[in-house]
Amino acid sequence: MTRDCEQAAFEAGIKLGALYHQWVGTPVSPASAASIESAIEKAVILQPFVEEVTVHLNRDLMIPNRFGYSELSGTMLDAQVVTRVGFAYCRARLATSEGYPMMRIVECHEISPVSDH
Amino acid sequence: MTRDCEQAAFEAGIKLGALYHQWVGTPVSPASAASIESAIEKAVILQPFVEEVTVHLNRDLMIPNRFGYSELSGTMLDAQVVTRVGFAYCRARLATSEGYPMMRIVECHEISPVSDH
Amino acid sequence: MTRDCEQAAFEAGIKLGALYHQWVGTPVSPASAASIESAIEKAVILQPFVEEVTVHLNRDLMIPNRFGYSELSGTMLDAQVVTRVGFAYCRARLATSEGYPMMRIVECHEISPVSDH
Amino acid sequence: MTRDCEQAAFEAGIKLGALYHQWVGTPVSPASAASIESAIEKAVILQPFVEEVTVHLNRDLMIPNRFGYSELSGTMLDAQVVTRVGFAYCRARLATSEGYPMMRIVECHEISPVSDH
Repeated sequence: MTRDCEQAAFEAGIKLGALYHQWVGTPVSPASAASIESAIEKAVILQPFVEEVTVHLNRDLMIPNRFGYSELSGTMLDAQVVTRVGFAYCRARLATSEGYPMMRIVECHEISPVSDH
Repeated sequence: MTRDCEQAAFEAGIKLGALYHQWVGTPVSPASAASIESAIEKAVILQPFVEEVTVHLNRDLMIPNRFGYSELSGTMLDAQVVTRVGFAYCRARLATSEGYPMMRIVECHEISPVSDH
Repeated sequence: MTRDCEQAAFEAGIKLGALYHQWVGTPVSPASAASIESAIEKAVILQPFVEEVTVHLNRDLMIPNRFGYSELSGTMLDAQVVTRVGFAYCRARLATSEGYPMMRIVECHEISPVSDH
Repeated sequence: MTRDCEQAAFEAGIKLGALYHQWVGTPVSPASAASIESAIEKAVILQPFVEEVTVHLNRDLMIPNRFGYSELSGTMLDAQVVTRVGFAYCRARLATSEGYPMMRIVECHEISPVSDH
């Protein structure tokens, strides 16, 4: 049987993979970044098993093209998501590491149920 | 030589085609719809030749799935964009017609330049 | 420390979430479905930790719109992915269940390393 | 009334805008590029008013990341589409120009109907 921790990690992966491929390519600028961050957070929190989500876009990477805007790239994204399945929690993060938008588990743990004897 | 009206129509088509394929699939609910509308408008207005954009999502089509949310579908979208190239303007609209998310030109016109004699 | 099984489950989730949001919305018909299946498989297999991937699109759901084609929807997708991290494997599947495109873990297991005594 | 040339230009814009935002972000490598090109062409040709489409991905830009693959970026794309509305044709192209993935009309023209007197 699959353990709750594995399920929580699976769900966290789904959310980060989905977020990435849904939003990469969106036109963005420092002035509109807060609006995009908020829309992503509000979209992710709707999904099952999500307890918490925060998204930050790196404005320093928003180099304007000749028309004065940028496109959201994976390396701009710093996102954290916490999922919960049963008594297990998983915190995972998408953040740029050495130029690659890396997704990794920050921590997974299972809360011991209160003893009932 | 391409006329400005054709260019304006071409640019309007680009914006509607891009908007559609960028945003379809995003998790959405009546509570988050305003945030998505605003994010789409702020993303589209950044692009070249766009004078004006309005986006409305049809909340009536947001039938909750078993987890209580929906995904943004093309039929939920009602978007208008006005593009300008030189003295030509094009207003185009994406709206559902008989179940199909139809993109069409509402009007294109060229403003006569002020006579200089 | 995160166990390999959790990592493998996390990676499987990433791949299914990414696949879903990358490809939903693509124009498709029964005649082009095999080409899309192949392109998805070739894209997923490139990603880290993926051992195996198969994608099948349900042609029965490709109801032609007034222009004779459909758009790839989540419910058309039946995808399986096997990820491996260290000695742990995870097989996960995206398939429609009661009208919802459900992603779930089929199995996760860890291979015992050969004893070295 | 909108002229056929404007309509054809509008339709060409839709197709290029859609193509761009549907496919950018897809994992790709020189080995899988032909499969992606073919899938894009087969998806675009399904759409209304499209007479012809060709897609070429620039392999030289597919610099492998630490995991040995790339993501499809707008600058990799060289796509041409021909649309037809009534007797008007529009050929448009997406190609990189000075580092920006530029969409432009190559030519629009209207064929004179055969005189019937």
